Amino acid sequence: MSTDDTTETSTDTETSCGANGAENATDTEPDSNCGASTSSSRSGCGSSKKSTTDEKVESTVDDFDADPGRLVAVGLGPGQPDGMTQRARGALLEAEHIVGYTTYVELLPEEVTKSADELYDTPMCGEVSRTEEAIDRALAGNDVAIIGSGDPNVYALAGLALEILESKGATASMVDFEVVPGVPAAQSCGARLGAPLVNDTVSISLSDHLTPMPTIESRLHAAAKEGFTIAIYNPWSRKRRENFQKCCEILMEHRESETPVGIVHGAGRDDEQVDIVELQELADLGETELVDMTTTILVGNEETYVWDDRMVTPRGYESKYDY
Amino acid sequence: MSTDDTTETSTDTETSCGANGAENATDTEPDSNCGASTSSSRSGCGSSKKSTTDEKVESTVDDFDADPGRLVAVGLGPGQPDGMTQRARGALLEAEHIVGYTTYVELLPEEVTKSADELYDTPMCGEVSRTEEAIDRALAGNDVAIIGSGDPNVYALAGLALEILESKGATASMVDFEVVPGVPAAQSCGARLGAPLVNDTVSISLSDHLTPMPTIESRLHAAAKEGFTIAIYNPWSRKRRENFQKCCEILMEHRESETPVGIVHGAGRDDEQVDIVELQELADLGETELVDMTTTILVGNEETYVWDDRMVTPRGYESKYDY
Repeated sequence: MSTDDTTETSTDTETSCGANGAENATDTEPDSNCGASTSSSRSGCGSSKKSTTDEKVESTVDDFDADPGRLVAVGLGPGQPDGMTQRARGALLEAEHIVGYTTYVELLPEEVTKSADELYDTPMCGEVSRTEEAIDRALAGNDVAIIGSGDPNVYALAGLALEILESKGATASMVDFEVVPGVPAAQSCGARLGAPLVNDTVSISLSDHLTPMPTIESRLHAAAKEGFTIAIYNPWSRKRRENFQKCCEILMEHRESETPVGIVHGAGRDDEQVDIVELQELADLGETELVDMTTTILVGNEETYVWDDRMVTPRGYESKYDY
Repeated sequence: MSTDDTTETSTDTETSCGANGAENATDTEPDSNCGASTSSSRSGCGSSKKSTTDEKVESTVDDFDADPGRLVAVGLGPGQPDGMTQRARGALLEAEHIVGYTTYVELLPEEVTKSADELYDTPMCGEVSRTEEAIDRALAGNDVAIIGSGDPNVYALAGLALEILESKGATASMVDFEVVPGVPAAQSCGARLGAPLVNDTVSISLSDHLTPMPTIESRLHAAAKEGFTIAIYNPWSRKRRENFQKCCEILMEHRESETPVGIVHGAGRDDEQVDIVELQELADLGETELVDMTTTILVGNEETYVWDDRMVTPRGYESKYDY
């Protein structure tokens, strides 16, 4: 996956999902999240009703009698099994419950899905309820792994999990909370393009669901002026086409129009597309299949060039060594 | 390893290393790089004489008769075997020759070192000559993997390899050049600290070996003003203590003095140390063991706080949901 999924699911309209019967659920609390998507039965949506803005968290640490289990947030990298680290694989094999967005749970290798007692996945509902579910299961005594694409510290799981633990009156230490890092989209897409990043780099998300657009614009200006290579996450969605256009405008204000820009759509998926264009061509691509929610865009700096179908941002050695 | 090794080795004084006899070398060219550090014999320095600034590259693509082999740049992540991806492990098992900085070659698991025909490592000489060596071996017909810590697109291998290929009159396609991504230091250190990064992030290196200090300062100002979480690479060395002090000053200009800062020294090594301090305390740590070339520093933004010994940069959900 080229886009860390956090904003992808959170900008979808949060529906109030019905709680389905929890087959094989090991939750002992009647008011806990519906456990609809377990290892064999997958219903449409397994999230709890708490996905609407006015509802408070249902369970707190006092609702649980058992000694808590462990909670580990695992970054999968781009999505295919070979993109995860050995440490991530080990953490998943140890977990009793694995919680995640359906797309990523379905990509897990068989050895992992077979070794877990339960898999809990939600297809379209927010990561908030899914993360709460994972925490409740850990507080109930299970060893839980919550998975995401990329890395848990890149627009992803780690911060949210800690915030929710605190709100439930629990602590990170109570569940021996651990973060297992993964390869972020900027680097996995960078690898497909050659050497686009290399030096000082900025990652900016164009999703204004949680960050105001004026802040995003200010950051784009700052990054574009300073010669950072830039990784654009969440560049486009139906509801924020104008954010992408604005981003292109801002980049064109500060950078040469021929600046190489790498576009990786659906990294690691069957519909993966990789392209290198000039900055001036970028805006028009907003309405094509190449740029959507699964796309990561890497913008070169003033030294970046294209060679042999690859983006190259030099380290600066050519000014020091003759080779 | 917490610091991607590129600048670590390149800022060391480049010595003119003597070429030692190449035991078991498979290089067919008499003027190729010395192959002193091969799978069983490790001499002090195996780099070629081309590590001084006035010398030109010795071999070009015309010097080789064989069909080229493959060249893959592999990111190891933090350094221990379980920190590399399955894909990285696969690429190393396929390689006939593995080239890298001694410290990382020594960390390779036995299954990898046993399966390679040759290991070539240099302890203290520049990555330029080592990368040239790897390329020459690929042009000579061997399948070569060049390794580095972290990710090849983060102050590392990928850009340099492409630059040197071009200078030798070769192409990336000729050696089927591939980049295998790894977990960068920012994310592997972030994982040790909890959730310090999370939102828009900047990586800045304080090494002014190849980037002028005024440029670095300008980037620090821009990043600090805009509320990015900041990963500082190569924060300190004996020759650039003042860069670290300057960095602390600039951060203090724009951020609250109590801003949480995470410091990870020697990530994954026996002497690993992790600490969370306030920004105002950072400057004084420059002369302690905590901050050196193996340290990565992660600076929080205005929303970051410390909770249960972890850094937490919130996603922003608390303003949207009550949990």
